[in-house]
Amino acid sequence: MKKIRLFTPGPVMVPEDVMLEMARPMDHHRTASYREMHKELHELLRYLFQTQATCLTFTGSGTSAMEGVIVGCCPPGSKALVVQNGKFAERWVKVCNTFGIDHTALDIEWGHGAKPGDIQKALDADPKLDTVIVVHSETSTAARSDVEGIAKITRDRGMLLLVDGITAVGAIPVKMDAWGIDAYVTGSQKAMMLPPGLAFAAVNDRAWERIDSGKTPTLYNDLKAYRKSLDTFDAPYTPNVPLIRGAKFVLEGVKERTLEGIWTETAMLAKATRAAAEAMGLKVFAADPVDSVTAMVVPEGVDEAALRKTMRSKHGFQIAGGQGDLKGKIVRFSHMGYVDAFDTLGVLAALELCLQEQGFRLEMGSGLAAAQRVFTEAMK
Amino acid sequence: MKKIRLFTPGPVMVPEDVMLEMARPMDHHRTASYREMHKELHELLRYLFQTQATCLTFTGSGTSAMEGVIVGCCPPGSKALVVQNGKFAERWVKVCNTFGIDHTALDIEWGHGAKPGDIQKALDADPKLDTVIVVHSETSTAARSDVEGIAKITRDRGMLLLVDGITAVGAIPVKMDAWGIDAYVTGSQKAMMLPPGLAFAAVNDRAWERIDSGKTPTLYNDLKAYRKSLDTFDAPYTPNVPLIRGAKFVLEGVKERTLEGIWTETAMLAKATRAAAEAMGLKVFAADPVDSVTAMVVPEGVDEAALRKTMRSKHGFQIAGGQGDLKGKIVRFSHMGYVDAFDTLGVLAALELCLQEQGFRLEMGSGLAAAQRVFTEAMK
Repeated sequence: MKKIRLFTPGPVMVPEDVMLEMARPMDHHRTASYREMHKELHELLRYLFQTQATCLTFTGSGTSAMEGVIVGCCPPGSKALVVQNGKFAERWVKVCNTFGIDHTALDIEWGHGAKPGDIQKALDADPKLDTVIVVHSETSTAARSDVEGIAKITRDRGMLLLVDGITAVGAIPVKMDAWGIDAYVTGSQKAMMLPPGLAFAAVNDRAWERIDSGKTPTLYNDLKAYRKSLDTFDAPYTPNVPLIRGAKFVLEGVKERTLEGIWTETAMLAKATRAAAEAMGLKVFAADPVDSVTAMVVPEGVDEAALRKTMRSKHGFQIAGGQGDLKGKIVRFSHMGYVDAFDTLGVLAALELCLQEQGFRLEMGSGLAAAQRVFTEAMK
Repeated sequence: MKKIRLFTPGPVMVPEDVMLEMARPMDHHRTASYREMHKELHELLRYLFQTQATCLTFTGSGTSAMEGVIVGCCPPGSKALVVQNGKFAERWVKVCNTFGIDHTALDIEWGHGAKPGDIQKALDADPKLDTVIVVHSETSTAARSDVEGIAKITRDRGMLLLVDGITAVGAIPVKMDAWGIDAYVTGSQKAMMLPPGLAFAAVNDRAWERIDSGKTPTLYNDLKAYRKSLDTFDAPYTPNVPLIRGAKFVLEGVKERTLEGIWTETAMLAKATRAAAEAMGLKVFAADPVDSVTAMVVPEGVDEAALRKTMRSKHGFQIAGGQGDLKGKIVRFSHMGYVDAFDTLGVLAALELCLQEQGFRLEMGSGLAAAQRVFTEAMK
């Protein structure tokens, strides 16, 4: 017997009852029951993003919604500052290049988050900039940007702030309206603990004003079409009906547990994982670690590919490696989805076993004990 | 007790074992098992499209793949002839307008398919045209275009032929390589009898040559990124893993039943439905009827909205109405997905009951008997 457990920062483990909820008989989307379901989902998404803004649901990956937000909010004449501090941040620069959007890429060392000071300096240097694009939780490096602080600046200057919240929303504190974020994006396969296939964009009135001022150069990811269909809680193109049912089902559970409760629990898992890494003699990669995913530096003498392979083949734990320049240098563990303290102890135990197998010297159980101390304190 | 039965031309009914196959525990996509599954799916898609071309899998609706095909195959300098004979055909004109693609829309009366003569004439009139875009089965009118005949012309002239096969592929004869179609698109929620959420595009070398000659003005639907990821049977953006597992599962069944067997069965359901309509005194709308969906003209004195409503509320049958100018004028019945002769007798029985309830005079059972005669002949 071998259980497969996903510790990848998306896709994540999905609760069995959610999978079965989605396995119920198909229904059509041009029906009163679909519209009612979509309407309820829309209110739940508003809770998730902590906003009164319009929440759009795309059948696609997070990239589809983020592409829609960027091309909609950056019509000709605008200029975007795109923070570039990881693989996903780089993708938004690529969107700008693909669509011919005027922009400046602000390079920040991988593992670091964007700080208000960085943004302020870059904005001061170029008065043409009117938009900031930033990744809240950069999944490739497990670093967190201070979007609350950055929003104060963009708000003051009357600029738009577009945030990739793909591994942030539902995992770490996100308060779209209170902070003043103009567009926030997430995907189904992260903290929403669903399979991949849906993406969500919350878009406020300031962003709509900009979007409506230009012509959107895309059809499938055109935010305007999604907004229009929301008048009747319809969809512009055939939506993934079972996943939408799953999203409503999951978010009802999120509301019951409360976002604050989930943020606290996720933070506890991250804190325990970081404490375990330190106790095992490993370094946490990110200088500004986020609580939704932890990246550990693979120690000298340990083969990262072999480590990940054994984690899966021998113990059933699927973890993630590094991307781009970080390939072979880090391993990443998710704290999102259907995962709790006891699952997390499991993956840490498997990590200890695999590190020892590769000749890395550590006291067996030291990581587990450190994690357990965090859990003990948190569960008091 | 009331069973809900979908007779809408997508989403369609999905077999219970397919839903449960997709409800199996989530797995990650950057794994050997995903790549193996994707590789097998790719071979099965080649069977489905009857091609040796590259088959790309998008997480999105059919519109996403069709947008990718059109913008990729129509770089600046090219000019497309877009047949416009229904709501979906109109959408491809809209894609051309959105992306600034030079094109001519060829209007053909709704309910009619495009014929080789129409295309020949239009091409003769404008030597700048180098691409033809046509819908094989126009779902909004239930009309079939002669893409085999059209392909002879485009092939002779060295042009590209891009075909929306969304309600054609897997339902009616489609022979991409034998006919010489350059790009064919379908979606998961039609003849593949899956939920919505995936789209597939088969793209041949002639099309790739054109695509590689230009710069694609989209990121999420960029065919090149999907082709590149196929080198390792990967995906450029997080794919809908359960639906991909479902697609492989369904197509294994399709191969076992054989495409020819499915085409014959679908044609039988369509023939029976058309015979039933005639026996009930109803007119089939399309002049060139397709076998994947049948549109009937709503007779004088019958309220289409009320008819469809009662079909669902009283008898559990979800059928489709008309779109655009056909709203209120036709009703449509699917012959795709998890539907057989006995289900079809059910929807025809419900239709007789609802027509009578609205005061339409017909001999009860006449439609059923006509359908049964077709089934009797076919099942000999």
